[in-house]
Amino acid sequence: MQHRLLDENDRVAANSRFWLGERGIVALNVMGAPGAGKTQLLERTVRELGPSVPVSVLEGDQQTDRDAQRIRAAGAPVTQLTTGSGCHLNATMVANGLRDLEPREGSLLFVENVGNLVCPALFDIGEAVRVVVMSVTEGDDKPLKYPHIFRTADVLVLNKSDLLEHVPFDVERCLTEARRVAPPLRTFELSALTGDGMQPWLDWLQSLVRAPRQSTATRTRP
Amino acid sequence: MQHRLLDENDRVAANSRFWLGERGIVALNVMGAPGAGKTQLLERTVRELGPSVPVSVLEGDQQTDRDAQRIRAAGAPVTQLTTGSGCHLNATMVANGLRDLEPREGSLLFVENVGNLVCPALFDIGEAVRVVVMSVTEGDDKPLKYPHIFRTADVLVLNKSDLLEHVPFDVERCLTEARRVAPPLRTFELSALTGDGMQPWLDWLQSLVRAPRQSTATRTRP
Repeated sequence: MQHRLLDENDRVAANSRFWLGERGIVALNVMGAPGAGKTQLLERTVRELGPSVPVSVLEGDQQTDRDAQRIRAAGAPVTQLTTGSGCHLNATMVANGLRDLEPREGSLLFVENVGNLVCPALFDIGEAVRVVVMSVTEGDDKPLKYPHIFRTADVLVLNKSDLLEHVPFDVERCLTEARRVAPPLRTFELSALTGDGMQPWLDWLQSLVRAPRQSTATRTRP
Repeated sequence: MQHRLLDENDRVAANSRFWLGERGIVALNVMGAPGAGKTQLLERTVRELGPSVPVSVLEGDQQTDRDAQRIRAAGAPVTQLTTGSGCHLNATMVANGLRDLEPREGSLLFVENVGNLVCPALFDIGEAVRVVVMSVTEGDDKPLKYPHIFRTADVLVLNKSDLLEHVPFDVERCLTEARRVAPPLRTFELSALTGDGMQPWLDWLQSLVRAPRQSTATRTRP
């Protein structure tokens, strides 16, 4: 039965990916453990990218719209998706969220998944890029202990670097083991709280939407 | 189908609970996000309880036996349970683990679940006590954002209290919201890294196995 559910999920995800691609919207699936600092990273990213790059956000949580309120206060359009007892977003939730959010053409769309280092790895939601956010307070052993989510990731953000001096965490060991699981991984080390190390992350995000694009009409009907 | 799976799980869990109860073994299901410090808490607990209280551990992880090695080095018998792509322990894994581990009569048994604030909440594994370990670096909003796991918890351990001065975290707000979700919650604030605040936790654990018990034989065949 799980196979059939995944087939249906992948069909919806493929539709969303096509729809997003046509409009030049780059969707990033932002995953990570509870408390990794995903929302804080998005808040600061929204503020610092500013008006130069249009950004919108789908916020996934089990309960509450607190994260959506934080993103809205930071200045981006946002739709909250609550999963109830569910442990991950799926493609249908995201497709419904897209209808509500109506992200702009040529924009970045962050989809903040439910805080969980396991289940989100299994579900395609139509994203172009998979980002794992990991706090240095979680310990440097996580890539090998939760390999599935790292294996499918394009980007690893090591967050809360301001706490490195207070916790036992070997950055080199963590990155080496993460790359052993996912060799082409792009990595950033930053603190979304203090802002240290944000610039390379912001530059990379801008590069995602900087490439010139054809008009949607041209690409829809070639 | 999920209902039938849960029925079967609950049947196995009930068997384990009976088996453990007969032997005066108090099983604690230790849950929490990845990096909350569950293993570190158990390492220090094993070391500090010392020979006065017999302790054994079932270690749940997606991959690797690193945590089991750490617990063994701390001095307790341990069996590693790896779930592969699974996001939680279930009653059958734990029942199989018990056959391998053979915990002593009148002992404490810690079952460290897979790091996850969502899925473990749904699965009874035959425990007597449910413990949620939460690091203060995760943010004080977690009880309301992940209410299911807090609702079923008996105990909340706020770990990494040594980092409180470096992170935005309102202990009172967190505990108030956790008690709103789970009114009878017993709470401990400690640092498993530095050892601060461990004593009330250790005293409480000792109280769990201190009560006099009848012999197993008497209780098995009344």
